[in-house]
Amino acid sequence: MTTTPRTRLSPEERREQLLDLGIRLLATRSLDELTIDLLAEEAGISRGLLYHYFGSKQAFHEAVVRHAAEDLIAQTLPPTDGDPLARLLRSVTAYVDYVIANHEGYVSLVKAAAGGNESLRAIYEDARSVLNGRIFREDAPHVVGAGEIVPDTPAHRLVVRGWSAMVEELVLSWIEDPSGVSREQLIGILTASLPAVIEVAPGA
Amino acid sequence: MTTTPRTRLSPEERREQLLDLGIRLLATRSLDELTIDLLAEEAGISRGLLYHYFGSKQAFHEAVVRHAAEDLIAQTLPPTDGDPLARLLRSVTAYVDYVIANHEGYVSLVKAAAGGNESLRAIYEDARSVLNGRIFREDAPHVVGAGEIVPDTPAHRLVVRGWSAMVEELVLSWIEDPSGVSREQLIGILTASLPAVIEVAPGA
Repeated sequence: MTTTPRTRLSPEERREQLLDLGIRLLATRSLDELTIDLLAEEAGISRGLLYHYFGSKQAFHEAVVRHAAEDLIAQTLPPTDGDPLARLLRSVTAYVDYVIANHEGYVSLVKAAAGGNESLRAIYEDARSVLNGRIFREDAPHVVGAGEIVPDTPAHRLVVRGWSAMVEELVLSWIEDPSGVSREQLIGILTASLPAVIEVAPGA
Repeated sequence: MTTTPRTRLSPEERREQLLDLGIRLLATRSLDELTIDLLAEEAGISRGLLYHYFGSKQAFHEAVVRHAAEDLIAQTLPPTDGDPLARLLRSVTAYVDYVIANHEGYVSLVKAAAGGNESLRAIYEDARSVLNGRIFREDAPHVVGAGEIVPDTPAHRLVVRGWSAMVEELVLSWIEDPSGVSREQLIGILTASLPAVIEVAPGA
């Protein structure tokens, strides 16, 4: 008889694996539904061990959401070369696909962050700040117009923040009711609206 | 000795008066802070009478928020004549001033609606739907461009919804940190961004 050799993971690797599982479960579930019990069942390990890894349900949720935010940031990284609008298009497309693929969890995160869960709100705001911050960076930015960098002024920061709220609303509304607007049209609207609103900021 | 004649209000008038007081209190307080006890103290009447009028704290909050939404809708009604962009500007200006004047209550409503309080969310969505719907109406609309009505298509409905989320985010962010952007610049951005994003919708 042969036995399949069991891979021995470090505690850190084991924790990462559990977080990945948490994110997969969150794709079709809200945060409220993502309980320690469910994760224990899906991972085939005890609740006690999970509490050992994460401490509490709230800490577990924070760890999963932080991990998910890192995934989102990695997946939407714009390519480093090419036409600015083409780079923005790639990044926006990745964002839309991420929200489609992780819809339930994403919606529940937005709800938790907007509804006053301060630690989830902080993770959400940090991720948003990284995504929006790219637009002002010279190395791999969402630069708009004819290769121009968006000037880093209070008015432009504000407008980019507004654009990002618009993007979120559009994607979530579209997923709820996509009738009459194709995925490509949605992505086109999201991409073209950044230079359009940047244009209206004072000093553009 | 003379006594000041007491005005006798009908129950309906009395209820309206209490709702107005609720809205005034909400300008500088969150919904959570707007308790029946506080209203009773401010109105100089008993808690029992307030429960008689409103039934429960949740029903009282719903009544105040519905009343506030009606105020917002009335105050932002665009003028019926004049240049379309000038009419939009008037309406947007009234919206900004409303949010400034009712900041605490407005923020707590947005939080409650976004966080999953379903009845407050319904009131919020209804108000938004009235505000956004104006943009597609021929009689007193936020028409854009050279007197043109925004075509009522799914893509344009979606874009207007996104614009309205952007407007809310911009106003709330600006109130939190207005440095570097004047109220006039903010209003200019909000107004000019509607035609700008309408332009990028397919079929515009």
